[in-house]
Amino acid sequence: MTKATQAVTYELLHVDKHTGARRGIIHTPHGDWQTPMFMPVGTQATVKSVQPRELKEIGAQFILGNTYHLWLRPGDELIAAAGGLHKFMDWNGPILTDSGGFQVFSLADSRSISEKGVTFKNNIDGSTMFLSPEVAIKIQNNLGSDVIMQLDEAAPYFESFDYLKESSERSVRWAERALKAHKNKDKQALFGIVQGAGFYDLRKNSAKNLVSLDLPGYAIGGLSVGESKKEMNRVLDFTTQWLPTNKARYLMGVGAPDSLIDCVNAGIDMFDCVLPTRIARKGSLMTRFGRIVITNHKYKNDFSQLDPDLDDYASTHFTKAYLHHLFNTHELLGYNLASIHNLRFLLKLMEDMRQAIENDQMVDFRKKVLDEYGYNRPNARLF
Amino acid sequence: MTKATQAVTYELLHVDKHTGARRGIIHTPHGDWQTPMFMPVGTQATVKSVQPRELKEIGAQFILGNTYHLWLRPGDELIAAAGGLHKFMDWNGPILTDSGGFQVFSLADSRSISEKGVTFKNNIDGSTMFLSPEVAIKIQNNLGSDVIMQLDEAAPYFESFDYLKESSERSVRWAERALKAHKNKDKQALFGIVQGAGFYDLRKNSAKNLVSLDLPGYAIGGLSVGESKKEMNRVLDFTTQWLPTNKARYLMGVGAPDSLIDCVNAGIDMFDCVLPTRIARKGSLMTRFGRIVITNHKYKNDFSQLDPDLDDYASTHFTKAYLHHLFNTHELLGYNLASIHNLRFLLKLMEDMRQAIENDQMVDFRKKVLDEYGYNRPNARLF
Ligand SMILES: [Zn+2]
Ligand SMILES: [Zn+2]
Repeated sequence: MTKATQAVTYELLHVDKHTGARRGIIHTPHGDWQTPMFMPVGTQATVKSVQPRELKEIGAQFILGNTYHLWLRPGDELIAAAGGLHKFMDWNGPILTDSGGFQVFSLADSRSISEKGVTFKNNIDGSTMFLSPEVAIKIQNNLGSDVIMQLDEAAPYFESFDYLKESSERSVRWAERALKAHKNKDKQALFGIVQGAGFYDLRKNSAKNLVSLDLPGYAIGGLSVGESKKEMNRVLDFTTQWLPTNKARYLMGVGAPDSLIDCVNAGIDMFDCVLPTRIARKGSLMTRFGRIVITNHKYKNDFSQLDPDLDDYASTHFTKAYLHHLFNTHELLGYNLASIHNLRFLLKLMEDMRQAIENDQMVDFRKKVLDEYGYNRPNARLF
Repeated sequence: MTKATQAVTYELLHVDKHTGARRGIIHTPHGDWQTPMFMPVGTQATVKSVQPRELKEIGAQFILGNTYHLWLRPGDELIAAAGGLHKFMDWNGPILTDSGGFQVFSLADSRSISEKGVTFKNNIDGSTMFLSPEVAIKIQNNLGSDVIMQLDEAAPYFESFDYLKESSERSVRWAERALKAHKNKDKQALFGIVQGAGFYDLRKNSAKNLVSLDLPGYAIGGLSVGESKKEMNRVLDFTTQWLPTNKARYLMGVGAPDSLIDCVNAGIDMFDCVLPTRIARKGSLMTRFGRIVITNHKYKNDFSQLDPDLDDYASTHFTKAYLHHLFNTHELLGYNLASIHNLRFLLKLMEDMRQAIENDQMVDFRKKVLDEYGYNRPNARLF
């Protein structure tokens, strides 16, 4: 496999002088996009309560789709018949889909895992299904996403060394099978997933074996699953050194502002998380000066802007009092506006981070954001 | 009171040669707008699941707010403190608010009505409240809507003549009290409401007495409450003759395509109804060729446009199959797209009607729309 046949390539522009933060461009069949980036999650072919044109408006680049959910409803073959996921959901930017493995391990019942794959009962109608490295690729080939992910085992972080060694080595074998099954290499890029929990040797072996496959990008898996932020940073620090600098690096499930900054400083390029939209639907708003829980009655007659200098439609057209009213009366518009706002907050944070990297200011940037956001305040409401 | 002090004036442009359909302009403190018009309903300071900018985009002119709901939450005084309802909900077009009476009669408990007003327990926290002609005006003065409505009694259609005579005469006295209480005549126009159910003499007296008050507009009340369409048309036919041709005429609660056309032909200028947004949230879509229930499984892989020649965002960017998927998975975006679509359908119907009136073609227009929509098909799914 040569570079010319790879659907997605990463171009490193600059590394911050004082951290590992990378400023880059990711070239895809749906355009060239700026990293580091945050990818809004569109689980079921829709970023919940937000229109595709609104995602464009707030500066979304990649969005994410969940293979497990799309496989069940409406089905990957129906999406293929629709002309692919981009066309089905009207998103002309790039899409990354996961392998479905994470949901099989977190949502499905009666799992049994073997070298061949995973048998499980799905959470919609309870029927028995089988997911393997080959099935995960076949589904994602049908979806037509720009970046597709290998099936891996979402193993618990605090398992035994022996279990995690067996699991992470199997994940590498599954990457090889995925690569072999992948039919559409010129239009879809297969990323491998480095596993090994908190063990240096397992991460090193996993990374080295995957890198030998010369995949167009690598995710670091098994993090942001309950371990401490410090522990996550420790693992990132010793894992990224084994990854090539000319390939994109993706970390799943990170969406808290402090973690995004720390992980960028550790050299990660791509992130996704349901956090901004999930907490939005509960009335929690990310703002420059910390989290606002808009359902709190103290906002009833607060006619100030959500975020003093944010530029999204919600923040510039509506007051805290209006949002409070929408949530108080369970009006659907509240979920839409809060979701737009939180996504824009994170997308803007990434824009600012890209600027900071270009200026070698990530150390100062981190301090400024965390100070303003209130990470240093006692009892600050974070995430 | 002279014309110069009236906040809203109606300008008659043309009457269809073969029907009573009127083409006009309504001048308001928030711009000049085209009649006949359909007004989307924004009950709680939001048209459910639709953004104000989306309402602009689909050609909404007036929107409606419900005084009863806004009085309870967030409260009219809070809205006044916010700078009025326009600013609170970010709507810079005109707003019409009702008097609150309809909701008191349909939602509240333990009503008792007297000459003074209505005492009732509200449906949110059960506390006892009192609504009078003066209170209804005070609330609407706080809301700052362009058109405000007098309090009337929403009497059942099939009551006795004696009851309806007493009720409709009291409504006229309430209009006089409302006019006296109205503090803001240069910015807000008070419309009276003609009552009298199906009785010619009651309607005539109600209309004549209200017209003597020289109000800037008149609603025809007590219709679209369960009587037949034929009966409604009969009442409109003999009621509009008593109304001045230089004042706007408003009919509440009509949103079915055939009824809108018939009522325009009877000389009505303004309509509102929750129908398009309410059925949208159930997955019912109005299209040129009839109602589509998008939750029906036959749309699962129907990749055609919702409505072959409609121009709204939902119809031009998404397929029936995608809408089916959104409703099947209970995704919030479905409610937004379906609501935009149905509102645009009715707003476009009114645009086409205005064109037909200008060309004296309302008879042909009615036949064409009803034929295509399927009103003449046996077992057609209508409204
Ligand atoms: Zn409150
Ligand atoms: Zn179905």
